[in-house]
Parts: sequence; C-alpha cells; structure tokens
Amino acid sequence: MPQLRVAMAQVDTTVGDLAGNVRTVREWTARAAADGAHLVLFPETAVTGYPVEDLALRSSFVEASRQALGRLAAEIADDGNGDVPVVVGYVDRAPRDTRPAGAGRPRGLPQNCAAVLHGGRVVARYAKHHLPNYGVFDEYRIFVPGDELLVVRVRGVDVAVAICEDLWQDGGPVRQAAEAGAGLLAVVNASPYERDKDDVRLELVARRAREAGCPIAYVNAVGGQDELVFDGDSLVVAPDGGVLARGPQFTEHLLVTDLELAAADGAPAWEEAVTRVTVSADPVPAYDPRPAELREPLPDVGDVHHALVLGLRDYVRKNGFRSVVLGLSGGIDSALVASLAVDAIGADAVHGIAMPSVYSSQHSQDDAAELARRTGLHHRVQPIAPMVEAFLANVPLTGVAEENLQARVRGTTLMGLANQEGHLTLATSNKSELAVGYSTLYGDSVGGFAPLKDVPKTLVWELARWRNADAERRGEQPPIPESTITKPPSAELRPGQTDQDSLPDYAVLDAVLEDYVEGDLGRAELLAQGFDAEVVDSVVTLVDRAEWKRRQFAPGTKITFKAFGRDRRLPISSRWREADASATVSGPVHSTRSVQVPR
Amino acid sequence: MPQLRVAMAQVDTTVGDLAGNVRTVREWTARAAADGAHLVLFPETAVTGYPVEDLALRSSFVEASRQALGRLAAEIADDGNGDVPVVVGYVDRAPRDTRPAGAGRPRGLPQNCAAVLHGGRVVARYAKHHLPNYGVFDEYRIFVPGDELLVVRVRGVDVAVAICEDLWQDGGPVRQAAEAGAGLLAVVNASPYERDKDDVRLELVARRAREAGCPIAYVNAVGGQDELVFDGDSLVVAPDGGVLARGPQFTEHLLVTDLELAAADGAPAWEEAVTRVTVSADPVPAYDPRPAELREPLPDVGDVHHALVLGLRDYVRKNGFRSVVLGLSGGIDSALVASLAVDAIGADAVHGIAMPSVYSSQHSQDDAAELARRTGLHHRVQPIAPMVEAFLANVPLTGVAEENLQARVRGTTLMGLANQEGHLTLATSNKSELAVGYSTLYGDSVGGFAPLKDVPKTLVWELARWRNADAERRGEQPPIPESTITKPPSAELRPGQTDQDSLPDYAVLDAVLEDYVEGDLGRAELLAQGFDAEVVDSVVTLVDRAEWKRRQFAPGTKITFKAFGRDRRLPISSRWREADASATVSGPVHSTRSVQVPR
Repeated sequence: MPQLRVAMAQVDTTVGDLAGNVRTVREWTARAAADGAHLVLFPETAVTGYPVEDLALRSSFVEASRQALGRLAAEIADDGNGDVPVVVGYVDRAPRDTRPAGAGRPRGLPQNCAAVLHGGRVVARYAKHHLPNYGVFDEYRIFVPGDELLVVRVRGVDVAVAICEDLWQDGGPVRQAAEAGAGLLAVVNASPYERDKDDVRLELVARRAREAGCPIAYVNAVGGQDELVFDGDSLVVAPDGGVLARGPQFTEHLLVTDLELAAADGAPAWEEAVTRVTVSADPVPAYDPRPAELREPLPDVGDVHHALVLGLRDYVRKNGFRSVVLGLSGGIDSALVASLAVDAIGADAVHGIAMPSVYSSQHSQDDAAELARRTGLHHRVQPIAPMVEAFLANVPLTGVAEENLQARVRGTTLMGLANQEGHLTLATSNKSELAVGYSTLYGDSVGGFAPLKDVPKTLVWELARWRNADAERRGEQPPIPESTITKPPSAELRPGQTDQDSLPDYAVLDAVLEDYVEGDLGRAELLAQGFDAEVVDSVVTLVDRAEWKRRQFAPGTKITFKAFGRDRRLPISSRWREADASATVSGPVHSTRSVQVPR
Repeated sequence: MPQLRVAMAQVDTTVGDLAGNVRTVREWTARAAADGAHLVLFPETAVTGYPVEDLALRSSFVEASRQALGRLAAEIADDGNGDVPVVVGYVDRAPRDTRPAGAGRPRGLPQNCAAVLHGGRVVARYAKHHLPNYGVFDEYRIFVPGDELLVVRVRGVDVAVAICEDLWQDGGPVRQAAEAGAGLLAVVNASPYERDKDDVRLELVARRAREAGCPIAYVNAVGGQDELVFDGDSLVVAPDGGVLARGPQFTEHLLVTDLELAAADGAPAWEEAVTRVTVSADPVPAYDPRPAELREPLPDVGDVHHALVLGLRDYVRKNGFRSVVLGLSGGIDSALVASLAVDAIGADAVHGIAMPSVYSSQHSQDDAAELARRTGLHHRVQPIAPMVEAFLANVPLTGVAEENLQARVRGTTLMGLANQEGHLTLATSNKSELAVGYSTLYGDSVGGFAPLKDVPKTLVWELARWRNADAERRGEQPPIPESTITKPPSAELRPGQTDQDSLPDYAVLDAVLEDYVEGDLGRAELLAQGFDAEVVDSVVTLVDRAEWKRRQFAPGTKITFKAFGRDRRLPISSRWREADASATVSGPVHSTRSVQVPR
C-alpha cells in the first residue's frame, strides 16, 4: 500500500484578514514541506477566516477571496513548495445555482469551498454539500450548496475532500467517497468548541471512517472569533474507528502523520457527480514511518478554562486592543474574569478597578486587593460615594432604582477610564445572571466582551477551583483568594443583601436553566425532571422577561450546547410563558436588578 | 360563474399570546359572518403571531399552537359561525420530514401552516413550501417545508391556499394552483413593511395572478413585532393584473369583497401532490354584489411615519408598558421621537427630560420647552452639572472621555427615572449615527426601543417636515418647532460643536450609507457611483468599526430594505476593510463619540 505523509495545520486565522491568512497558510505550508509532507490540509475557509457571515453577500469580498487564493497558490510555488498539494478552504462563487426550492438565493451565489493548490495553480475546487443552518450557523442564508465530489490523486492515492458539516449529515460526500473508492477522506473544518463535543466529534469521525471505508484526516481550526472558539483537536481515524493521530487543543499545531493507504485503481466505468484530478500518480518510494503523535484531550473544566482564555485573548488581539479594564468587586465573577485576563494577555495589560460604596464589605475590598496582589494586575480604588451622592441629591431615586444607580455609576466610571486610557472593558456577568436578568443594564453589564457570558454560576466556582488547583500542581500561588470562592455571593447594593434573597440556590437554578435554556423543555417536562413547580414557574418567567436585556449584552465565548445570542433566537415582544400559558402575563420588567416573582 | 363574498381580516396578533390571538380570530370571524362572508382569511401564523423564531423549536409551544387551533375551530362553531370556512395560519408538526439535504433538521419538525376550519373542526391543512431564510427571516432554521398543494371547494369554487414566500419564489404553489384549475388563490401573509415595498408587492401579486389564471386574495398582517411592522394593505387582484380591492395600511381592517369566480369542474384524472377537500359544493344563489373597497396606499414619507408610530405603539403595548421617557435635547432626533411617541400613545404617557449641561445652548433648551408646549407631553428639566462635576472631581477624564461622560450621566439619569417611575426608555439615535458609531454607548444610546434606528438623518428631517405639514393640513399646530428642523445638528458636548466637525454633510453621508449598507457595494462600486474617495474610505471604515456598538443597541422599527440587526449579520472581529484591503487596520474604536479618521 502506498505511503503518504499528511500534514494537518490547525491554524488561527482572522475573519477578513485575507493578506494575513494567506501569509499564515504559506508559512505553515513551508513548515510542512520542510518536514517532508506529501499533502497539507488547512481548515475550512482558512483564507477568509470563519464564519464570514454576511460578508459572503458582498461581491467585493468574494472576489477578494478568489484573488487571494490565486496569489496563495503562486506564492507557495515561489517558495519552492509548489510540488506539495495543499487543500485549503476559501469562499468562491458557484458556477451555477444548485439551490433546491426552499429559501431565497444569495446574491452572487457565494459558496463555501476547499481548493487544491499545486504547481502554482488552483487545480481543483470542492463546494460544501451540507450547509449548517441551526444553532450559531447561518450557512444556508449565505451559501449555495455544492453537489459534486472531488477526488484528487496524490502519490497514487485517491483523496476525497469534504467540509465540516458534510460529515455531520447522513449521505452525501461520505457515501460518495466510499463509492468512488477513495483511499483517504480529507475533511477540513471550522468546528466550534462546546463542552463534551470532543467525544461526540471523535465518535462521529470514527463512524464516518467506517462508512467511507478509508481513514479520515480531520483538520480543525483553532482560535477565537467573536462568540466562537475553535479548539483544534485534529484527528486521523482508521476505518476500524481506531485513532491514528490526534493534535492538541486550543493551540496552533502541525500534526504530521505517516499513513499507509489503499492504492488508487482507476475510476469506475461510470460515476455521477465526481470530479477527478491527478496531482501525482506515482506512489512515494517506501520509507520508514515516524511514530504517530497522539495527544490526550484535556479533562473537563480544564478544557473550558483553555477555551475561555483563548476566546478572550483572540477577541482582544483581533480587535487591536492592548489592554483590558474591569471592575473588581471582590466577588467570584470578577475574580475569575481577572484571572482569565491575566492568563490571556498578561498581568501588565489588566487593570482592575475597585469601586466600593457604603454597602461594600471590608472583606470584599480585601479580597479584591488580595487577588490583585496574587496575580500582579494593576489595581486602583475609585470610591463611588461622591457621584452617587450627587445623583441622589438631584434626582429622586429610591429602592431598586437606587440600587441600579450604584451599578450605573460604576459602569460610567469604568467606561470613562476605558475611554481615557484605551482599554477594552470586560463585563463580568455570568450565564445564570444573564438568564434571569439579575444585572443592571448599563451598570455592571457594561463592556465590549463578556468572558463568562456562557458560563453558569456553578461552573464559575468550578473553574476558579480548577485554576487554583492547577496553580498548586505547578507549584505556583493560586490566583483566586479562597474566601472569594467560599463566601455567599452578593451584589452588595443594600445592607446584608445576598443573591439568594432573590434567586433559588445556584445549584437548583443552574439545573433548571440547563433544561430550559439548553434543553428547550416545556413546563410539564421540567416538572417531570423533578423540579419544584414554584421554582420552575419563577425561573422560566424571569428568563422570558429578560430577553430584552440580553439583546444589549456584549458577546462572550460560547462553551455550552446553547449560548445566549445567535444560538437562541427569541422574540422580545412575546406573551408566550411556559409558566402558565393561560394566565395574564406582563412584559419585560425594565427596572429589575433585584428580580421579582412572576405575577 | 359562482359568486363568493371573501372577507380578509388584516388583524394585529401578538407572538405567543395564543389565547388572545384565538379570541381575535373568533371575533373577526363573527364580524365577517355577520357581513355575509362565504370565506374568511386570516394572516400567516395568526394563531401564534409572527415571527415565532426559536419558539418553534420548543415542542410545548408547537403543541400549544395545535391545541389552540382545535379550540378555535370549536369556538367558532359555538358562536354559530361553523358554516363559514376560515383559513388561518398557525404552527404545526410536519407529518414527515420533507427537508432536502442541506441544512439540519429542526427538532420536532415544526411547520408553518395554514388550516381550514369548518363545522367546528380542522378540515384541512397546508404547509408553506418556500421558507425565506434571508434578510430578517430565519425560516429554514425553524421549519420544514411542505410539498403538497391544498385545494378547498367552497360554494362550488376551488380555492387553492398558499403562504407568503410561496408567492415570492418562482414555481411551486402558484404553478400547481394553475394546473389544479383553481378558481381563487388565497394567500395568507405576514409580510413586513419596507419603504416602497407596497408597489413591489402589488406587481408581484398581479404577476402571480396571471400565472395562476385566477384572482389572488392576498391578506396581510398588521402591527408591530419587535423590529418588524406589518402594514396590512391586503389586496384582491384579477388574473389580468387589475386591482379588485385594496385594504388600508397600518390599521386592523376587514376587507370584504364580492367576487365572480370560475366554477369548479372536478379534479384532473391524475394529479401529483394535491390534497382536495370539499367544504360546500353548491354555489351561492345569485346576489347583487356590493361595490368593492379600493383604498389608495399612503404617499411616501407619510407611510414611513405611520409605520414608525405603529411600530412604537405596539412595542409599548405588547410589552406591557403604559408610558415612555426620553431625553429632550432640543434637537431634531429627540423632537421627532417625542412627536412619534405622542402620536403613538398620547401626550399624557410621554415624559421628556431636558438634561442641559454647560454646553447646552439656550436655543436648544427653548426648543425643547416649545416642543413640550406644542405636544402637551410631560416636561422636566434636570441639569447634569452637579453629577458631571462629581465625576470630574474624582475620576480623571478629559477630551472624548469627558464628552462621553456627559452623555452617560444623562443616560444614567434617564434610566434612573425610568426605573423609578416604570417607563420604557426610548433611545433617540438615528440610522446614520448608528452606522458611523456617532453616539456614546451607555450614554445617549440607552433605551429599550429606538424608533429611529432604521431612519437615516435626512429622512428624520423629511419626517419632521411631513408631520408638521400634515398638522397644518388638518388645521392643527405643527408639533415640531421650525428652529429644531432648520438649525445645524450638534451633540453639544463641547463649545460650538456641530456634527459636521466629524462627519460629511448628511446628504452625502446618507447617500454613501445607502449604497454601502443597503446595497452592499464594495469600494470600487462606490467610487463608480461618483462618491469622493476620501469620503468613501472614511465612511466605510467608520461603519465597519462601529459593529460592536450596534450589537448593544436597542431594537427599532425596520423601514428600509436592510436594517441594522438581524437583517445585516456581520462579525465584530473582522479585519476586512473595503477602504483599503491591503493596509494595516485597527479594530473597533471603543472610545469614540467624536469619530476619528481612518488610519
């Protein structure tokens, strides 16, 4: 059987940075060529970055992508690497309209494609057959599907090409690859991280390798892009389901694997919808394969931490910031965000502002100072009393409006410092708060990025504990003060306040939220899970009413099956209430920090 | 030819309010029956409201929709109207999976359906064939398409049924209706308003009536739903393209039309994918038809004003608010928003807060007071100096950060009063400002709803002039002071500031924005339109950099072809710049109120 050294480059590209992405592909191709690779694979739409969203509808963008691809092919040859075939994703125009009736047709027929570059030219292209249009994905909105298989003969091996979702849907390219007698199925991906998705993905690739009857080389992108983070974790899986190679998570990497593959034995007499291209017919002379690289995936919680650090780092970097600012309350959310920021961009680029009020406890202020001492971030104290007093002396605000005022004076202070000094402001709210609306809009929710947006409160504590334990394993001082982790959570907006004055215990709240928000269960199904009816009614009503607030919240890294935002699209003006569909319900409560029981 | 009295009920339903919507359909059916109607048509998904978005993915919601439909059928019969067939939209489960390969399959196979109710029962159902998945629509995400035509025999006339997008796409139900020999094509719609869309829609219906070879009865929804407003404008068009009847815009209405239609002459011997149901075979005894109702569509600018008033009124009402609050600067944007709010919910429910600073001109304060006097809204003056001074004495803010501070102190004041008194806060930013990021996040941009979100600045002036002229036509005092319309626009955040210190003339700016934002033109195409290169580079760079700000902005009524928000989905982290794709570019500028020239 012919041998093939396949290099999978899990790289971090940036949406729209065609010049930078082309440079990345060129550099990693040179590295792979120097390592003796016979075939190099890059992720889905590596040339344009992923996801391009409605940029695909702009013909200037699609043309720029096509031209960048052509330049890339030529430059790889200029570098002396034109003899190594490179498979790389980009955005192209469809040669014809392949859409079935159903949705509209995007202007200019953009298509999610993978090209094969060889000898300084684009020698073949493949268009993704299956366009995900669920969850965070809108590909049916912006692309037309392909319907032809691509088989490229490389060193006497027939390599079929597929793109990401093609693997997740039954039929299509995997079945076609089997019928076409492919010796290898190369799948280029931009598959975003979700907790526990690595296991799902491995099982899927194994199943598809069995169906294809040949190994699958699965290369995935790495890096943060707005709310998505790509985890790498590239794989080579044998048709018996065995893992032949596996790359690391959350870091750029070249996974080089020596494979023995079935020899190409000529195309069938007749076949439908297959494009065949020969890059090189002669097998590689026999050589001694190197041992395969087989990384262990990160254990749970640790992988979430890596995802959050990378998501934050790339948001900061890709948007041209050099530093961040956040409010440090002494509580667990701001402590974890600060620690993540220090891990992402270094302590010297992190500015924590303590903004105590008359209701701030001494232990909170001490905890914030201790966190700053342990992490080395820049720490300032900016009391809010003078500004709050000026408001209260002039604007008649009491009760919840006064609580909100304190939060907004903090928000204004933080944004003022961010504007003055050029930092990105980080919002510290977590997913549980966002779910039930337990925050003040334009107050504690201010910021351009929210690292914990998709992290439920119970997982916030787990992450803090994991981070501290990880530091101890490395003989370092744990960054987060123990008392920050163990004390009862409080917004400290009135004397003696705790979160549990207004909310169920977080363990219960998060369990209900997981089933309601991620699971889309209705009331009857929630009760069947064993939850208390009063808790269910209260929680789902709060969630429904807070939709308007979530719409104005910053982006943050998605780590669960269903994040708030594009992943969960619900109307604001809605009288649908799981709690009691027949009762009179009122709309969003625009005034709450303290949450209110459903009427 | 048999006669038929067709009643089209253009009603305003609310998403999720199944009980209320069922009540509405029942009441309007009774009204139509009392008026002698032989067939009553309601809009697309009138039972659930439109659009339901991801509520369709929740099986509890789909079940509730099915049950509400069954109750509705029974209740109409209880009212003694069971003999009048009613066509009404709702959400159902698909009996089988009809999705072609392409996107994923929504859980539970929800389907966008129209049912025929008769004799207390649901006698037939039709599932929409074409699912719009562009612009603001995500129907391919949440529904599976239907593939069968429905033909209902009513009083000896074969009535084919279709739903909204079925008419916009070639082929499908229209062609099938022609082949099935339908005497009438009943199309139920929830087609959102866009400027000039009424003409497009009329041409489309006329073209499809020719293709179907029979009249089309086109019933459209009315009312605001978050960012969409449905304008009614229901139509009956003959196969020669002539308009037989036309309803009013922006108001609930029962359009009752007497038609002479081709007699049903039995189904073809063999036909594919058609469901035929007979409700009543015998034609109506001959009667004297009434003259048809033929409303003139509203002239341009006037129709936009009606759309904005209805969109605002329904957002307030459907979300359970009784009053609104907004900042009154004396400028044109806040004056128009105040006037719209007074038109929408009455002067007594509108609270305008003037928040002068040391930079506020006397004429601005006078204009705000004069606006309040003319409209009768509640007017308060709340100077911001004491709060601004407290900040500046404690937090070192200068330059743009100080300008932003003033805006945020106003935002905090406004939100405080809203929270204290229970108002919905209205944001007053217009589309031009939102496009280039000429606003302060958490400052002048605060609010739960933004009536001018999709209104370019030049149209703001046109609307103000139209509203004043309309008042004069009715012999009333124009609400907006003339000096508010004629003075140069200024944010008044520093001495002598005007918008044109930072931005091109608004006529030029809006022209570039229309081609770039709505037209998706690239740089070369913009230059070919005759725009100055420096202006183009400056404007498109500002637009690209402000994406992060727009994400945190309130919803507002869509009136153009492409609104910001779900209509235009772009990444925040993006290095794609039309201005000069090869140059080094920096990311979003998080500090601007005053905009900066591109680097």
